[in-house]
Amino acid sequence: MTNINQERNLTLLMDFYELTMAAGYFEEGYADKVGVFDMFFRKIPDDGGFAIAAGLEQFCQIIDNLHFSDEDIAYLQSKGCFSQRFLDYLRNFQFHCTIWAVEEGTPIFPGEPIVIVEGPAIEAQLIETLLLVTFNHQSLICTKTNRIVRAAKGRPIMEFGSRRAQGYDAAVLGARAAYIGGVVGTACVMADRQYGIPALGTMAHSWVQMFPSEFEAFKRYAELYPDNCTLLVDTYNVTRSGIPNAIRVFNEVLAPMGKRPKGVRIDSGDIAYLSKRARRMLDEAGYPDCGICASNSLDEYIVRDLLVQGAQIDSFGIGENLITSKSTPVFGGVYKLAAVKDGDVYTPKIKISESVEKITTPHLKNLYRIYDSETGKAMADYITMYDEEVDVSGGITLFDPVQTWKKRTFQNVHAKKLNTLIYKDGKRVYKNPALPDIRAYCAAQVETLWDEVTRFENPHGYYVDLSQKLWDERQRLLDEFGKN
Amino acid sequence: MTNINQERNLTLLMDFYELTMAAGYFEEGYADKVGVFDMFFRKIPDDGGFAIAAGLEQFCQIIDNLHFSDEDIAYLQSKGCFSQRFLDYLRNFQFHCTIWAVEEGTPIFPGEPIVIVEGPAIEAQLIETLLLVTFNHQSLICTKTNRIVRAAKGRPIMEFGSRRAQGYDAAVLGARAAYIGGVVGTACVMADRQYGIPALGTMAHSWVQMFPSEFEAFKRYAELYPDNCTLLVDTYNVTRSGIPNAIRVFNEVLAPMGKRPKGVRIDSGDIAYLSKRARRMLDEAGYPDCGICASNSLDEYIVRDLLVQGAQIDSFGIGENLITSKSTPVFGGVYKLAAVKDGDVYTPKIKISESVEKITTPHLKNLYRIYDSETGKAMADYITMYDEEVDVSGGITLFDPVQTWKKRTFQNVHAKKLNTLIYKDGKRVYKNPALPDIRAYCAAQVETLWDEVTRFENPHGYYVDLSQKLWDERQRLLDEFGKN
Repeated sequence: MTNINQERNLTLLMDFYELTMAAGYFEEGYADKVGVFDMFFRKIPDDGGFAIAAGLEQFCQIIDNLHFSDEDIAYLQSKGCFSQRFLDYLRNFQFHCTIWAVEEGTPIFPGEPIVIVEGPAIEAQLIETLLLVTFNHQSLICTKTNRIVRAAKGRPIMEFGSRRAQGYDAAVLGARAAYIGGVVGTACVMADRQYGIPALGTMAHSWVQMFPSEFEAFKRYAELYPDNCTLLVDTYNVTRSGIPNAIRVFNEVLAPMGKRPKGVRIDSGDIAYLSKRARRMLDEAGYPDCGICASNSLDEYIVRDLLVQGAQIDSFGIGENLITSKSTPVFGGVYKLAAVKDGDVYTPKIKISESVEKITTPHLKNLYRIYDSETGKAMADYITMYDEEVDVSGGITLFDPVQTWKKRTFQNVHAKKLNTLIYKDGKRVYKNPALPDIRAYCAAQVETLWDEVTRFENPHGYYVDLSQKLWDERQRLLDEFGKN
Repeated sequence: MTNINQERNLTLLMDFYELTMAAGYFEEGYADKVGVFDMFFRKIPDDGGFAIAAGLEQFCQIIDNLHFSDEDIAYLQSKGCFSQRFLDYLRNFQFHCTIWAVEEGTPIFPGEPIVIVEGPAIEAQLIETLLLVTFNHQSLICTKTNRIVRAAKGRPIMEFGSRRAQGYDAAVLGARAAYIGGVVGTACVMADRQYGIPALGTMAHSWVQMFPSEFEAFKRYAELYPDNCTLLVDTYNVTRSGIPNAIRVFNEVLAPMGKRPKGVRIDSGDIAYLSKRARRMLDEAGYPDCGICASNSLDEYIVRDLLVQGAQIDSFGIGENLITSKSTPVFGGVYKLAAVKDGDVYTPKIKISESVEKITTPHLKNLYRIYDSETGKAMADYITMYDEEVDVSGGITLFDPVQTWKKRTFQNVHAKKLNTLIYKDGKRVYKNPALPDIRAYCAAQVETLWDEVTRFENPHGYYVDLSQKLWDERQRLLDEFGKN
């Protein structure tokens, strides 16, 4: 396993205002002033019914290794706007924050705290960008991938997008997030090398073109990789050339060796039509076990449509639409102050805004998921003040935070606290699970959602409700700060 | 300046099929077989009239440092499908390719070779993904940024997107590409530290919330940064609270110090309306020189609309829509075999496809830009065989490669060869310019395009034509391979 931050020092991947503010807090004597910051998001990508959290492992690696090198300090000094005292503080930077986060692979919903950071405001402020870019990127790709995986209804999806990724990390960590979201493998060798995600792949069109003929190219490939013989059949013409040549190679090369072909891949043209033609030709030639893989700018909608049309596809390779989440390439996670703490007293903070959806929920909070104890289905998420006891043994009545007259009572449920303690006073207390375990956890958690929440079109809005105490507090602050 | 590949070994950022194919060429005795590969793209992002090339510097750093570490070799061995001979070859990997590329900051068009790699097919194949991800990512962001910069009509644009970038490189190298495309600075500290892109920034809403009042927050900030005092005025209410408090601080803190305010920033709400109100209030208070910066999910269309509506904005901070090129987050560059070489003889190669737009232009080629000698305007691009002489002293007649009866004759023009030699037989012969020079070159080259090519809606299709000889060759191959 690779540690993203041991390879390179990412500490300075921050917005400049984090430094000017940190310097400001420092100079004001606010270095020990404790703030509570929430990371949350406002809108689900692709107008879906849920998103999936990912990125915690890399975030931990970054936090574990936060430091300003001598070169960093020299650079900051050269900016001419930071005092020597502040630079010394950075040189000896220590991290004291307590952090809670939703575990990787967990379905998440707008408005709930995915990560909570409590600690000296100066420290909590300095990690803002690194926190956001890490969770935003991987949650985005994991969420998108899971949509595509669900569209394929059990057929394996392979991640093929490195070449169209937005940079090197986007390729490798994108493959990691995709693996959590459910792909079976990746084309990206580095993702295999670094994260153990099975790397898969066969040939490009150039292999076929390099040889005197398509037949010759297929023949040589089959001789070299008889146990893993997948042939790309669309360099010239799928039905008139590609499939006939493939069958001839299966007959003349693999059969005498006692080997069966693994598959053919179609990367262009009318995939629904070509896959059906190819299926018939392969079946008639005695290769009903030869899989057909489709690629070519697919996404969850095209995959679903292909299957509706009866396309004979056994697996999909998905590139650019997955690795960039092309239809919604931004996961809009934000990081907002929710409270400040003096001694043991929390003072809740709210950000009012003329854009209603930008108004925040104040205070240090807990996030619970309410499951039906009989079906195991997730019924609602429930956000409380940090010091509230949650007892659902006698059922629980929730109300919509906007249309408060909309009430629902759930009986026979249990509540699971989703905000897990990751750092306590700057020390890591959480061990990230192995990647395959995160992937399995993700699949299991998505299963707890009702079909109404997971469908692509007009999914049912999952309930994310506030406790009465938290709602009252928010209302009080809205009244106080909204009035002027 | 940072070398991306000295920090970490990116060599294995490749698709697995590049390895299986390379191993195949190796085992087939094709290790010295020379191929010619073109990198080109098919579609301009955002249906624009041109794209801009970027990424060459990082590509060179990667090529300069290609190597398989012992750990890489051990990993590949563990895959169980590569011979010891091939692994030894990789362990002693040497690069012999000749590479031509269009220089960074150059406007580019669909179908023309942006990068050409000639060399042992096995080597040329192994760099496919690294080449594509590098040019695709930076060209995408540079192209998008330039659109936003043009929409702002001279007003400075700042890159604010790190937190929404698709990973760490996407933030830092995205800022680099954005700088080439014309932003004046970035919020990203690491982009400043690594690439010298001016880092800018002031405060987040959390600064305002951290203090007992907005006035107090502004006051402290002004005291700390009197020479660079930009205040974020939308935490509570722009016109009733933010601007009045800012003016009070300008009067009570800055004025006694003899300082002028730098600006205010509005990050939410109706920016057109609020900026006009803010402008009036600032002017009436005696601060006509106080700039107004707008942010909040802007892009080139919103920037243009704001200006059309008379918004009083002096500079823009652009985040997610720039750093992910949200409206078109994929630059679809591909890498295709164009020829193979035996001795001194090139055999052209074509990829036919049932998708017409996927058909390639064969052969080792040169790419010229034809400029009008009087106006300096770019009239057309002209692609020739590698061994053609181009003499435009007596004018040149070009024809549309699809509708060949459409002919155009240009007089009084000169031709500039765009494919620049970067590597000769594996040795770098090109020195990447300094980043500010690339940025200036980009701005100057965009100026050579007609307004009809640079407009956002239905831009005129810039001419990219083939020489008669190259067109004939392509037609011959199409006839030959398209017939079966």
